[in-house]
Amino acid sequence: MKKILVVGSVGLDDIETPSGKVERVPGGSAVYFSLAASMFSKVNFVGVAGEDFPKDVIALMNERGINTEGFEIAEGKTFRWSGRYHYDMDHRDTLLTELNVFENFRPVLPENYKNSEILFLGNIKPSLQLEVLERIINPELVISDTMNFWIDNAPEKLVEVVRKSDIFVINEDELKLMTGKPNFLSASDKMLEECSLLKALVVKMGKYGVYVTDGNEEFFLPAFPLRKIIDPTGAGDSFAGGFTGHLARSGDYSFSNIKKACVYGSITASYSVNNFSITGLKEFDHSIIDEEYERFRKMTTF
Amino acid sequence: MKKILVVGSVGLDDIETPSGKVERVPGGSAVYFSLAASMFSKVNFVGVAGEDFPKDVIALMNERGINTEGFEIAEGKTFRWSGRYHYDMDHRDTLLTELNVFENFRPVLPENYKNSEILFLGNIKPSLQLEVLERIINPELVISDTMNFWIDNAPEKLVEVVRKSDIFVINEDELKLMTGKPNFLSASDKMLEECSLLKALVVKMGKYGVYVTDGNEEFFLPAFPLRKIIDPTGAGDSFAGGFTGHLARSGDYSFSNIKKACVYGSITASYSVNNFSITGLKEFDHSIIDEEYERFRKMTTF
Repeated sequence: MKKILVVGSVGLDDIETPSGKVERVPGGSAVYFSLAASMFSKVNFVGVAGEDFPKDVIALMNERGINTEGFEIAEGKTFRWSGRYHYDMDHRDTLLTELNVFENFRPVLPENYKNSEILFLGNIKPSLQLEVLERIINPELVISDTMNFWIDNAPEKLVEVVRKSDIFVINEDELKLMTGKPNFLSASDKMLEECSLLKALVVKMGKYGVYVTDGNEEFFLPAFPLRKIIDPTGAGDSFAGGFTGHLARSGDYSFSNIKKACVYGSITASYSVNNFSITGLKEFDHSIIDEEYERFRKMTTF
Repeated sequence: MKKILVVGSVGLDDIETPSGKVERVPGGSAVYFSLAASMFSKVNFVGVAGEDFPKDVIALMNERGINTEGFEIAEGKTFRWSGRYHYDMDHRDTLLTELNVFENFRPVLPENYKNSEILFLGNIKPSLQLEVLERIINPELVISDTMNFWIDNAPEKLVEVVRKSDIFVINEDELKLMTGKPNFLSASDKMLEECSLLKALVVKMGKYGVYVTDGNEEFFLPAFPLRKIIDPTGAGDSFAGGFTGHLARSGDYSFSNIKKACVYGSITASYSVNNFSITGLKEFDHSIIDEEYERFRKMTTF
């Protein structure tokens, strides 16, 4: 089993969806990712929160075997995000973003993190992603993610991150924004042209599933057909966590195993959206995962 | 091999896409459908055009073995439609609709059409769909389609059509409109509740592929990953034609074979969008269809 180092955001979120409203609930890409990945593998966590971040979340992470030596509690307030989802759950309005302690975050890596075999560069400033990348000793696999804010504000640095990654995970809309192409196929082609060392580009298309290509092979996987979504926040990070977790536990980074990793990522994401904040991920049921895997196979086989 | 009776629209279209602009080109649901279905099976055609409809299109249909005895040429002008596609090809604006001879169309069925085993009720007024349905002697399989105009203007009659159908083929957006549900899964559930005799509901999701369910089993198929789409007009009708054509040639209407029919439908649609009007369908290449079928299998297998 390989160890995953994840760096990303830690937040306290206010979320409103057609199912309800919650305030100051734990969130952030690194929190969702690490809880998801911990179902499959060992995780070394790097992130920053303020003194107001609930201690029981860190305790939960430790219970799940997540190493939080690199989880810095800084003086001040935790990063805050507030969003409201539309009726169709496909779109959301960001109502508030307060960087707080995240603003001056400089990731510090405990010595025993530096031999992590897999590096997951979650959604933070691309220059910080590069800093972390430089400090890891010969990672076997680098996976990166981003969000539209960095595509708009640090495009060159972001491309540098992707060029140094083996796998890039990105939303369909963000990929179109980043490449200026109108559909996910031509956008994927352009991204692979620009970042020719990528072993796989993973395009998350929400309820339409995921598209993966290495420029040669192509793979489509539908999303788990959920009838009710309570809270889509963190779905992409949970997908990435299950995806990376499977690659870590198997140590197999082939395209064929990347396809399987997408199935585990999708199953993990389906738990995440089943409840607000990280509550859904807490309810992850490992005993039925083979059943869920087979359900995906049945849904896609003809 | 079973015979398909198709009834639907015949048109002359003006189409503008990012790839170019054409005027007064042949179109209409029944024209696309029958050319697509004729790649796989026998088709009996019912429709109306005006005296301005090009004779060479009817000649082409006959060459393809389509029976056009039920193709009425009425005094006056052919139905006209004009549309402009947006840059992303997902949306279009209808610039003009002139019903012309289509306005007073009453389908007349030649005697030797009445034992057609499969009935495809293309997009026409639901009350006319019901009329045709009543005149066919014990069809083995009834497949229906519609468009948003009839959902808005004849919802009760339309539900009656679907209740009398075995398979209902519909666009994702139209299904949402028809059921008032915000996503294709809950919308599908509602449709199957209301029309409980449906053997399959086929939801066309454009570049995201197709979703099929009978309320018990579920199936997802991605779209053919085309890099360039010249003209999306008729893609749905071409899908339905390939889909129905495969069911007709095999005579097997099981859910398992309906899945395979979706693959043939998607391959057929991929030819249709490859050129303006019906030109793409003319270029259909039967010699590589097994190869294309296997490509779908590879894209979806993990």
